[in-house]
Amino acid sequence: MTHEIAVIPGDGIGQEVTPAAVAVLEALEIDFEFVEADAGDAVKEETGEALPQETYDLAASADATLFGAAGDTAADVILPLREAVDSFVNVRPAKAYPGVDAVRPETDLVFLRENTEGVYSGLEDRLTQDVSTLTRVVTESASERLAEFACEYVSGDDHDGFSIVHKANVMRETDGLFRDTVKGVADENGVETDQVLMDAFATRVCLDPEQFDVVVCPNLAGDVLSDLAAGLVGGLGLLPSANIGPDRALFEPVHGTAPDIAGEGVANPAATIISAAMLLEYLGYDEESDRVHAAVEATLEDGPRTPDLGGDASTGDVTDAIIDRL
Amino acid sequence: MTHEIAVIPGDGIGQEVTPAAVAVLEALEIDFEFVEADAGDAVKEETGEALPQETYDLAASADATLFGAAGDTAADVILPLREAVDSFVNVRPAKAYPGVDAVRPETDLVFLRENTEGVYSGLEDRLTQDVSTLTRVVTESASERLAEFACEYVSGDDHDGFSIVHKANVMRETDGLFRDTVKGVADENGVETDQVLMDAFATRVCLDPEQFDVVVCPNLAGDVLSDLAAGLVGGLGLLPSANIGPDRALFEPVHGTAPDIAGEGVANPAATIISAAMLLEYLGYDEESDRVHAAVEATLEDGPRTPDLGGDASTGDVTDAIIDRL
Ligand SMILES: CC(C)[C@H](C(=O)O)[C@@H](O)C(=O)O
Ligand SMILES: CC(C)[C@H](C(=O)O)[C@@H](O)C(=O)O
Repeated sequence: MTHEIAVIPGDGIGQEVTPAAVAVLEALEIDFEFVEADAGDAVKEETGEALPQETYDLAASADATLFGAAGDTAADVILPLREAVDSFVNVRPAKAYPGVDAVRPETDLVFLRENTEGVYSGLEDRLTQDVSTLTRVVTESASERLAEFACEYVSGDDHDGFSIVHKANVMRETDGLFRDTVKGVADENGVETDQVLMDAFATRVCLDPEQFDVVVCPNLAGDVLSDLAAGLVGGLGLLPSANIGPDRALFEPVHGTAPDIAGEGVANPAATIISAAMLLEYLGYDEESDRVHAAVEATLEDGPRTPDLGGDASTGDVTDAIIDRL
Repeated sequence: MTHEIAVIPGDGIGQEVTPAAVAVLEALEIDFEFVEADAGDAVKEETGEALPQETYDLAASADATLFGAAGDTAADVILPLREAVDSFVNVRPAKAYPGVDAVRPETDLVFLRENTEGVYSGLEDRLTQDVSTLTRVVTESASERLAEFACEYVSGDDHDGFSIVHKANVMRETDGLFRDTVKGVADENGVETDQVLMDAFATRVCLDPEQFDVVVCPNLAGDVLSDLAAGLVGGLGLLPSANIGPDRALFEPVHGTAPDIAGEGVANPAATIISAAMLLEYLGYDEESDRVHAAVEATLEDGPRTPDLGGDASTGDVTDAIIDRL
């Protein structure tokens, strides 16, 4: 069966790392049909729209989407794209790789971030000159869906359960609902959990990241705490992510457009290629996914390396080396 | 002029570190009148109320309050106490000390956290079985008051300006109002600012804390990011804080009740004693404040040390050593 893969490079280094990941996927000779589409600052400049309707529709119908990065329009692109695939969870592994300088080399975490609501609901008002409000929405149904995914996620692998991160001592009703719902689903499934306040998590993960493994959290907490974990593993450069929906999914590196190096051909393609490995696993190509992960890890360890990792190789050199090692 | 100082030890090690800080203040022979009051889990057990009205009233009338810690009732104690002193800013220095193991020893930050609104407004609802909401409030007036404080804060010392941390790419109206208001006040005062997204801040502060100095942020961002900085300097054990209002203020260590060591007499009093040094500065005793800071730093460097810092001294030993060095 042919799988249709939407490819949305976007802006900046997205134009360099996305083709690199596609080259890796092509090298595996799977029956993929790649369809490219535009999004981001550049297309907005041309057409007035950061996310053209065709691009949205493509992501909403393709089996999977690979997205690069967007510039100033990032939120106008990525939030609707997440909605296009109806993605209820953002899976964000944050793992230190051998050979890469890390603040905390023992970090190996996976964030399962709620991906539809919280402060991302987009309900804001300017009530008076002085007062603005935002309605933060937390639903039992979204919390349940996330928790079911989390239970499935930790059962498939060598995990002992997961941590529920929240701020229910202040957001008693909303994060209370989140925490209790997630805990209830975990209990029903016989999955062990512990509960950690989001501020305490921030301290504890710096002091000893090994005490955590899989972390289930609301939308903004997942945004900030996974970026914190990115800092612990040495930067956003190596972090992949998967936005999973019931029927399709969208994969993207966590990094942005890196305007300082865009166009120079030296962007590190690793995060996007690891995102492509997550795409492979999502579509059932587990063996191929493992091969890509292994080839990326070997290349991070033995080179060639792009300048961000202290080397002087180009994006193309690194991509070729990964393909050679497949 | 006598200053009335409310002393609220609270629960757990609050009962040990608060008297230690009072002993240091007493050793300075300033004309302080200390008045003690209860709050926390223990008084709730007895009376049904975590924050008795007398305690609230005392904090609302004293010149300054020194608070220790509260257990499960922490939010029920500290949030009303912050309101009692009408504190619009929470000042949270996060600095690594020589002689103390830190993930990032070069960390030297001060968070100026908005202290009255954001998700702390307490406006929550369970709309249906499925849906709960929280109203996040951001006002121009609170943002202005914070920004004026921040401008004053950076002018008094060797600071180059401050960073405004926000998430206005998602919370466009509310954090947009926050960011623009703070920036406007800074511009009027000729204070330099830069703007950093809260998630990007979390990554960047781990990678290179020295790129930041004074950080101005909304309430929850300040809560989480200052706890992150606590992780970078080696834990909550050494972090003081000041909740500043127009006419009075409340000082507290950032750490909690430490139930694992409470009652053993080995709690590290440093964070509370540094909080007392902030109290001295607030009341105009700059020279005495400097002496306390210096005595604490010398003791952290040369000992004696409590077990959390690898020593075997008691709270009393450390307190005596600090007093000897005043
Ligand atoms: C660009 C922004 C809207 C987005 C988010 O906040 O989710 C980004 O930070 C991310 O984490 O993918
Ligand atoms: C106890 C809690 C309500 C409080 C907060 O969230 O402000 C604490 O985490 C703090 O930072 O002082």
